[in-house]
Amino acid sequence: MGHRLADVSTPARLAAPEEGIGRDELALATRNHGLPLEALRHDITPPGLHYVLTHYDIPYVPDDTPWPLTLTGRVRRPLHLDLADLRTFPQVTTRVTLECAGNGRALLTPRPVSQPWLVEAVGTADWTGVPLRLLLTEAGVAPGAVDVVFTGADHGIERGVEQDYRRALPIEVALGDDPEVLVAYAMNGAPLPPQHGRPLRLIVPGWYGMAQVKWLREITVADEPFTGFQQAVAYRLRRQPEDVGEPVTRIAPRALLIPPGFPDFMSRARVIRPGPLTLEGRAWSGRAPVTRVEISTDAGQTWQDAEPAPDDGRRWAWHGWRHTWTATPGVHVLCARATDAGGDTQPLEQPWNRGGFANNVIQRVPVLCLEEDVTQAGRPGR
Amino acid sequence: MGHRLADVSTPARLAAPEEGIGRDELALATRNHGLPLEALRHDITPPGLHYVLTHYDIPYVPDDTPWPLTLTGRVRRPLHLDLADLRTFPQVTTRVTLECAGNGRALLTPRPVSQPWLVEAVGTADWTGVPLRLLLTEAGVAPGAVDVVFTGADHGIERGVEQDYRRALPIEVALGDDPEVLVAYAMNGAPLPPQHGRPLRLIVPGWYGMAQVKWLREITVADEPFTGFQQAVAYRLRRQPEDVGEPVTRIAPRALLIPPGFPDFMSRARVIRPGPLTLEGRAWSGRAPVTRVEISTDAGQTWQDAEPAPDDGRRWAWHGWRHTWTATPGVHVLCARATDAGGDTQPLEQPWNRGGFANNVIQRVPVLCLEEDVTQAGRPGR
Repeated sequence: MGHRLADVSTPARLAAPEEGIGRDELALATRNHGLPLEALRHDITPPGLHYVLTHYDIPYVPDDTPWPLTLTGRVRRPLHLDLADLRTFPQVTTRVTLECAGNGRALLTPRPVSQPWLVEAVGTADWTGVPLRLLLTEAGVAPGAVDVVFTGADHGIERGVEQDYRRALPIEVALGDDPEVLVAYAMNGAPLPPQHGRPLRLIVPGWYGMAQVKWLREITVADEPFTGFQQAVAYRLRRQPEDVGEPVTRIAPRALLIPPGFPDFMSRARVIRPGPLTLEGRAWSGRAPVTRVEISTDAGQTWQDAEPAPDDGRRWAWHGWRHTWTATPGVHVLCARATDAGGDTQPLEQPWNRGGFANNVIQRVPVLCLEEDVTQAGRPGR
Repeated sequence: MGHRLADVSTPARLAAPEEGIGRDELALATRNHGLPLEALRHDITPPGLHYVLTHYDIPYVPDDTPWPLTLTGRVRRPLHLDLADLRTFPQVTTRVTLECAGNGRALLTPRPVSQPWLVEAVGTADWTGVPLRLLLTEAGVAPGAVDVVFTGADHGIERGVEQDYRRALPIEVALGDDPEVLVAYAMNGAPLPPQHGRPLRLIVPGWYGMAQVKWLREITVADEPFTGFQQAVAYRLRRQPEDVGEPVTRIAPRALLIPPGFPDFMSRARVIRPGPLTLEGRAWSGRAPVTRVEISTDAGQTWQDAEPAPDDGRRWAWHGWRHTWTATPGVHVLCARATDAGGDTQPLEQPWNRGGFANNVIQRVPVLCLEEDVTQAGRPGR
């Protein structure tokens, strides 16, 4: 560790061929966490199983800490609201599937060095709060507004830039009702857990996690496009470092299998026994409703339609699907593929970019189906 | 992935020199998670921030799932209890700090290949349940009892052995009241979260995590020492593969600092500014009460006593401490060291064994103290 800021906060880089996960990536992986895939069984992800990514420290906010929220900038009546004020506005609860923009990054070749997700950076919760458009209407957006900037209380350094976490939404998204953006104060009917933004956060249904500003303390209406670090430097789709790149916005379609059978502790390989097996999982897209889920049991060579769960009308949450398969001894690679109403589908080959964002290559789940008579010492066969 | 069980479930091994964290270790790190160290500020760890390690899948146990618990073996009256039966026994709540036996493993050289913890596999909760000794008394332990074996519903394969997770305690520990072992059904006043053993788990205050059997469904009193995988193969302190090894039991003393200042996203380096700073943290030992915490701000060359928080009488939970330090520009390596009433203390050099267990080498927290006048574009200095 050198003596200057530049020594501890270095430029983005790609891992070298065959370079294992480093100490820095591991430090992120041990503190952030994904959804253990078997928890896809739950319609609503229980607390502690929903994915979490925090750029800096989780702010320490004991109960009853005053939490003034300001709404200022290009508005007629700046607002200064506390939590009690917010509860006087109409309250909305929306079930939302959130996914980290970097989900799948650690599967990429070459691997962008950052939070090393495999495929598990996802979760679904019921979020309750005030529609942002009502707060903006109360404040009165002045002509010329372009972006709405959201500032969190989380503070740190990234690529040499000291900052509070800050992101913006275009004014038309902030004022829209499809999706309806929330300033949320409850998750699954309880106050927000510390790691999910206690006491206040933004929820932007259908958008990747970087838009869901946690520990929200300032909302600023701006008459110029926001060019802060998390908007103009991070979270852009670039092939080369010098590209301006496209911004990361809505969640690309994805289906995930609940891995069948049981795992080996260390290899995480899945083991099953021969016979009929119901494959189940979830699928979602932030761009348009999922219209089709297909399953492959031969590593993507052939595909069959899965049976979707009845539509529950929850546009912004994942939906279940199932498919019956008869397993035979040997190794099988299971895959699932989601397609949405906009025609977006999941690729078989990685969609690579330098940040490792919005990578929705199909999941591959190798399973070993044992011979019928293979039992283990100390227990009867199953 | 080969076609035989032995191909997916291989022997334990050590990482080669310079070998980065592998895909298998990463798959464990993304699903299990540690305590983000800033969460040491909370006396009781909020749900989702407490460390979690599960060997296999987290069992799916929807509300109202019948959960019969059996207590059989060398007893006069075998018990078959449901959750309502358990609640008719006297209820005890104990605040307990749990730590994974593998905490610190990824810092070891050579590194045992397994769940790659740095130092964060810890958490503190209030656990509520029935004292195990009351259940054993109700059943009537027969003469000749040696071990009490606990079986969880979690099922998988480890080093080629298919198994339900199973561990034993010596009969005198199971019947003892110091620590008082609990069959717990609540964590922090709420039903157990799925990842912490819903609906029932064992809590053995002062012991490492491997003893705290989750998803508990069978208790068996045995008249022979238990030789199951998690007792006789895993969780032993060995220098060589062929050693019988000592069993891993109680938690060695450890102190952890709440990292001061703020982090760089990628390097996780800590950055502070010059001036007085209160260093704070927690310390615990499962062997004997912590009697001393020392702080070093020069990488362990010199030490000063930290000020302990007033004793709250909670023997099995971590305790706070603090120390005021005046930071000057440059790089400093902060360390904390706990010593317990038994004279056990934390080593400056790693206590190595092949499993990477019970490693309580002192934590090292490098911090970069900036010059007074270093401010960042876009924000005032702090």
